[in-house]
Amino acid sequence: MEAIKDNQFFQNLSVLFKPRSVAVIGASSNPDKLGYHVMKSLTQGNFQGRIFPVNPGSEEIMGFPAFSSLEACPESIDLAVIVLPAKMVLDILYQCHQSLVKGVVLITAGFKEIDDPLGAEQQEKLAEYANSVSLPVIGPNTFGMVNLNWDLNASFTPEFSSLKKGRVTLVSQSGGISHLLAFTALNNIYRLGKVVGLGNRLNVDFAQMIDYLVEDPETEVIALYIEGLDRPRELMDKAKRVWGEKPIIALKTGRADSGNQSSMSHTGSMAGSDVIYQGAFRQSGIYRVNTTEEFLDLSQALSVCTLPKGHRVAVLSGQAGPSMAVCDICYDHGLEIVSFTQKTRETIHGYLPPLALRENPVDMGPAWYNSSSVRGIVRAVLEDEKVDAVIILMMFASANRVTIPELSPVLFEWQQKKPVLSCFVAPHGIWDQAIEDMVEQKALVNIPTPERVGKAMAHLWHYSQMINR
Amino acid sequence: MEAIKDNQFFQNLSVLFKPRSVAVIGASSNPDKLGYHVMKSLTQGNFQGRIFPVNPGSEEIMGFPAFSSLEACPESIDLAVIVLPAKMVLDILYQCHQSLVKGVVLITAGFKEIDDPLGAEQQEKLAEYANSVSLPVIGPNTFGMVNLNWDLNASFTPEFSSLKKGRVTLVSQSGGISHLLAFTALNNIYRLGKVVGLGNRLNVDFAQMIDYLVEDPETEVIALYIEGLDRPRELMDKAKRVWGEKPIIALKTGRADSGNQSSMSHTGSMAGSDVIYQGAFRQSGIYRVNTTEEFLDLSQALSVCTLPKGHRVAVLSGQAGPSMAVCDICYDHGLEIVSFTQKTRETIHGYLPPLALRENPVDMGPAWYNSSSVRGIVRAVLEDEKVDAVIILMMFASANRVTIPELSPVLFEWQQKKPVLSCFVAPHGIWDQAIEDMVEQKALVNIPTPERVGKAMAHLWHYSQMINR
Repeated sequence: MEAIKDNQFFQNLSVLFKPRSVAVIGASSNPDKLGYHVMKSLTQGNFQGRIFPVNPGSEEIMGFPAFSSLEACPESIDLAVIVLPAKMVLDILYQCHQSLVKGVVLITAGFKEIDDPLGAEQQEKLAEYANSVSLPVIGPNTFGMVNLNWDLNASFTPEFSSLKKGRVTLVSQSGGISHLLAFTALNNIYRLGKVVGLGNRLNVDFAQMIDYLVEDPETEVIALYIEGLDRPRELMDKAKRVWGEKPIIALKTGRADSGNQSSMSHTGSMAGSDVIYQGAFRQSGIYRVNTTEEFLDLSQALSVCTLPKGHRVAVLSGQAGPSMAVCDICYDHGLEIVSFTQKTRETIHGYLPPLALRENPVDMGPAWYNSSSVRGIVRAVLEDEKVDAVIILMMFASANRVTIPELSPVLFEWQQKKPVLSCFVAPHGIWDQAIEDMVEQKALVNIPTPERVGKAMAHLWHYSQMINR
Repeated sequence: MEAIKDNQFFQNLSVLFKPRSVAVIGASSNPDKLGYHVMKSLTQGNFQGRIFPVNPGSEEIMGFPAFSSLEACPESIDLAVIVLPAKMVLDILYQCHQSLVKGVVLITAGFKEIDDPLGAEQQEKLAEYANSVSLPVIGPNTFGMVNLNWDLNASFTPEFSSLKKGRVTLVSQSGGISHLLAFTALNNIYRLGKVVGLGNRLNVDFAQMIDYLVEDPETEVIALYIEGLDRPRELMDKAKRVWGEKPIIALKTGRADSGNQSSMSHTGSMAGSDVIYQGAFRQSGIYRVNTTEEFLDLSQALSVCTLPKGHRVAVLSGQAGPSMAVCDICYDHGLEIVSFTQKTRETIHGYLPPLALRENPVDMGPAWYNSSSVRGIVRAVLEDEKVDAVIILMMFASANRVTIPELSPVLFEWQQKKPVLSCFVAPHGIWDQAIEDMVEQKALVNIPTPERVGKAMAHLWHYSQMINR
């Protein structure tokens, strides 16, 4: 059933993501219950609103007074997170509406994704009701969602609260992929804004999320993980209508037939033909990538970097080997390792000892001991009018320990004029803080390998070509 | 010049990698000097042999009595690490021979890699002399080398001593790539045995390393990072002669023309035509991969897993989404997601609740709360005669916290019969120790993303096809 999405629905959806009060219906003190983990997520984050555990059998949960029902809560509830058994959910939705709840995160599973047709039937009933009262419901069969810029972790995974706040909103059809991406982001000092598990998409589907996120000032990049769509046209139309307003990128699995059965099972939709998706994405301005790594790397690059005006790249490296790996990838993906202007070569000449190369890719190794030389080279290359984008690579060595943090001002200054991506690699604990600070300042997107940083730059260029065609 | 490599040379090469005594010629107490970092590497590792800093201007360096010359050292020296200016090196090589030094790591740069033809000339003189006295020299223009199984860090990078000991020997033409790979291995709980920076390859080239490593009981996988070869035929002949004895894998950069200049500069050889390399590798049983990630992932898989006897893969996952990403990669690379036998389906049926899928890929999510069920499913699938290889995926969630360590015995038991690769992902600090323990026991190769674990399995299969054709 196509949902009716009126203004009220979208107003409610904004409140859902920025609630002042949250009730957990099915909250629990028992670590074996999801209601325990949801409470932990909500209370251990830095959430500034009020939290109301609802459980008729408890007086208090995790230090919060518990209430026997939504109605019993002493103030109005913006968001209800539901972790009760499937058969109780319809009743709870009635109560939500009665109590003027604005939005629901429905974690409960056992609907459209199960073999039993009763599951789909039950979900249809929920959808009908929720639509009739303009109540947006994330889920069912979801881990929940996180809005880091609101310090809201409405999921059963407390660890999501440790994510660095950013401007990338991840909307995903799979809880497993969401966890993979979020944990990888966490381990890689990548930043996310919202992570939304759509689950079975009762009435909040990709299309509704795009409608909302295009208007959301805290979202600068929309990243969709898709397995299959019930109403592909709806998503494509929405995306086309907001063409170029904000980058929309997609990771889509389900090329292999064997995957389809799995998708049917866990989110209740067929994966569909990959070729059709490929064309539809392109026509509607959704930029597709093929792996979780590319998806994360590109999302970060788009949220920090300006788009390259051309395909001419400069590669600056602390060691020659990694720059060769980058040049190979640039070559494979249509980027040019451009020749510098005479002026740039002369400037670099002033910073490097007599026997070093002054051409692109620049081996800055001989300047390691002198951070201001490295800075000078980076600046000269950024100023070169023949250069559209810059990739900087540096593997840790004792001699270059301080180089990274000292690059911060020049990278920050230039990041809005030409895209700069880096691959700074060191054992954990050496550069982490410096990189985190620079990421925080939007001076840096640091990508773990030369091949991935080259690929991310190629994606930036191809994205900009797609969007400007 | 083709080096004469007699028995003496190879005997000396074994001593070079397992010295009882090491002299650092050009040792220093000044952190701005490479001689300082080499001393730090040697002394902060757990090296059991004797260390002799040589520096005529010092009495003592890092608590070790310093000597004015090699000759002045109170006992015979097996390995000399040289960090003196280029013009002094020939003289030092004479002294090494006089003092019965068995092998040299020549860190000094300024030879064949520089623009000035004097550099190449000087290197030729060193080679002539070293060959005439069967003295193996790693370098010049190298970071050095590490033999973790001998607790020997003869490099200017003390951090290499933190690497986990394993059976993969990495032989690399680039210091930067060596650092990238080693740090990535460190951060990813991957294990390495030796990391050898060949630098300008005075008389120890890839071919000599293969000769040595095929006989080296501590090396089970030989991983070559190649930019260009002066005598490709020599390497190919050696590799062909030891066909299948130990896996030899290669990462080769230099596809892009722009990279060639960089390679010429830093290791003194042209990158050459990629297509020719591609064919030559295949004909000589060297398995090529294309990225640093694949190179590391496959090296680890080959050092732990038995080779798959066929291409029929089972995918077991804690969440459905990541298994779809794996199935896509398997599909792209010619692996089959096989149907289980009836017996296996029935066994799985006993472990999973009524509504879960029992087919490949198996979503084990519903069994999370019960580690013994997960173990039972894994065992049933490993026992299925239709299954040649198994991939297990699990994203952390509170409910599966203990699942990983409890899989250890079954994985350890089966790893020698069928290859098992995993992708267990959690925020740092949650599963690290459990994964480290399992990696230590050779029960596990844990690869960071579903796509990479699928690709590594495909490489295992394609490697086994290449080697058995």
